[in-house]
Amino acid sequence: MNTLEKDIVAKIKSFAGPSTRAMHLRLGIGDDAALFAGRPGQQTILTSDWFLEGIHFLRDKHPADAVGWKCLARAVSDIAAIGGEPRCFLLSLAIPKKLTAWLREFLTGLKRAATRFSCPLAGGDTTCRDQILMNVTVIGEVPGDQAVLRSGARSGDALFVSGRLGEAELGLRLLRDASSSRPKNDAALKRHLYPEPRLTLGRWLSKKRLATAMIDLSDGLSSDLPRLCSASKVGARIEAAMIPAVQVPSESKLKGSDPLLLALNGGDDYELLFTVRPRHVRFIPSSFNRILLTRIGQISAGRKLMLVRPEGREQILRASGWDPFRPGR
Amino acid sequence: MNTLEKDIVAKIKSFAGPSTRAMHLRLGIGDDAALFAGRPGQQTILTSDWFLEGIHFLRDKHPADAVGWKCLARAVSDIAAIGGEPRCFLLSLAIPKKLTAWLREFLTGLKRAATRFSCPLAGGDTTCRDQILMNVTVIGEVPGDQAVLRSGARSGDALFVSGRLGEAELGLRLLRDASSSRPKNDAALKRHLYPEPRLTLGRWLSKKRLATAMIDLSDGLSSDLPRLCSASKVGARIEAAMIPAVQVPSESKLKGSDPLLLALNGGDDYELLFTVRPRHVRFIPSSFNRILLTRIGQISAGRKLMLVRPEGREQILRASGWDPFRPGR
Repeated sequence: MNTLEKDIVAKIKSFAGPSTRAMHLRLGIGDDAALFAGRPGQQTILTSDWFLEGIHFLRDKHPADAVGWKCLARAVSDIAAIGGEPRCFLLSLAIPKKLTAWLREFLTGLKRAATRFSCPLAGGDTTCRDQILMNVTVIGEVPGDQAVLRSGARSGDALFVSGRLGEAELGLRLLRDASSSRPKNDAALKRHLYPEPRLTLGRWLSKKRLATAMIDLSDGLSSDLPRLCSASKVGARIEAAMIPAVQVPSESKLKGSDPLLLALNGGDDYELLFTVRPRHVRFIPSSFNRILLTRIGQISAGRKLMLVRPEGREQILRASGWDPFRPGR
Repeated sequence: MNTLEKDIVAKIKSFAGPSTRAMHLRLGIGDDAALFAGRPGQQTILTSDWFLEGIHFLRDKHPADAVGWKCLARAVSDIAAIGGEPRCFLLSLAIPKKLTAWLREFLTGLKRAATRFSCPLAGGDTTCRDQILMNVTVIGEVPGDQAVLRSGARSGDALFVSGRLGEAELGLRLLRDASSSRPKNDAALKRHLYPEPRLTLGRWLSKKRLATAMIDLSDGLSSDLPRLCSASKVGARIEAAMIPAVQVPSESKLKGSDPLLLALNGGDDYELLFTVRPRHVRFIPSSFNRILLTRIGQISAGRKLMLVRPEGREQILRASGWDPFRPGR
């Protein structure tokens, strides 16, 4: 290891966030691998996510500390979607040789996220590359019989969603629209830059056995609902009028944006979409820790995905969320 | 998920190798995350490794099935270096949209490796990108008190290495040297393309409590020995004449290559470097499952790393193995 790599690894170690001496993490960074002692009765949750310059973030648009926060937050969101708790993560990082200031800011954001989610850095891999590449693996735990899968929905289940949808997409548009003045405390921008995985909500729904199926909205409702339905071998019917869509401020230059389209197709919200047996619907409050919980439709037999338009017309829901493989992207 | 991504994920699932229904893997690909039930009394080993086009492999030189084999083999080697056994892995893959034939071959090699190492695919992430990027996370297990760390070496311990060093580097040179005729069964080339992590040896050394510290040689002896010594806060003295260096065939166009330099600085051998207390040296056989085991030196107090040249002169060992951060690379 030469001075430069040593320096980078030392920086990563010192910025890693909560102590890696946590009870369940026996060996952190600096050996061939990390050692993790699972708690009795718990299953280990494993998830990996790309976070790549040019696809998931733009170096000239996204602040480095937001890149640090978000690369961990979005992987942790997969743990929330199972109903688990994060335990530690591995960071694989490839960066250009001379990005010292960027790295410092990135690690500041990463550390804030690691502390917030009680998820210390356990290891990973570092190399250099012209573009910034990240891959984050999060290790979580969930009590043996409490994992909420995508596949548990049944016909008749009510379909719920947390939060307001489309806010992160509106934030992305604000960020991209160089001409717009963007106040740093803009709520939508914050939602895009510093998403909050719904860990407490996911854990509660899992522990109380209220959610029969669950997924986090990373690519947009119109893309993620089909995934849940496909895994459960069911269809769904959602009502546009019920969807808690982003409120586009009237003074915004983006006021032409259709809130419904933002809510259906906007990515990066990291809210939870979950199903509930009819007899349990009454146990779902209208908000949980100040996060809105909204019933937006129902699971149906057959495999059709239908959207009831605000004016009452039914149409087939088309997956139009984020998709890196879409032709032309 | 559009047809193209579905197709890629379906291909990955069907080529994944050993069954993901293995006892300890409760939920494989297709949900937000994978679920892994650790065995009682075992610690979970976590390791992530980059495998990037242009850094770790060349698309026009390395056969796709070798890329598939090697991306898993090198991550599994970190499990061997702890003395553990692999249990499952996550693959994050970014590929250009139209690399269908390449993907098929890649998955064939990956499946062969997954089967060989009893390490099924549990999940990951897929996206598209101009260049091929991979990140592999391997989850392994080791009995609670048997993990062999880098940090356990003490002054006086004997230093051993498995196999012959420099073979993979010679193989890489054969591959790069377009002018050389390269027989497909060339042993050195095979070592470079299809490395064999020393899982059985690592597990045996761990179980018998013979190795006090261990590391796998991924970047070359001159780079990896300092890592072991640094973690153990010791120095070492190795004898050039004892190092089991690659034999450069006299008919090879690369016959000018110095076997000692190949052995010291060549990467990708994935042999194990380990230390043994003096009283246990007699339990180390000269070969294990036909893999040569050679005593090449000794751990010393202080932090110096010395190389005794074949003619008897001592010199400081300089780290000259693989290093992506080296200026000019």
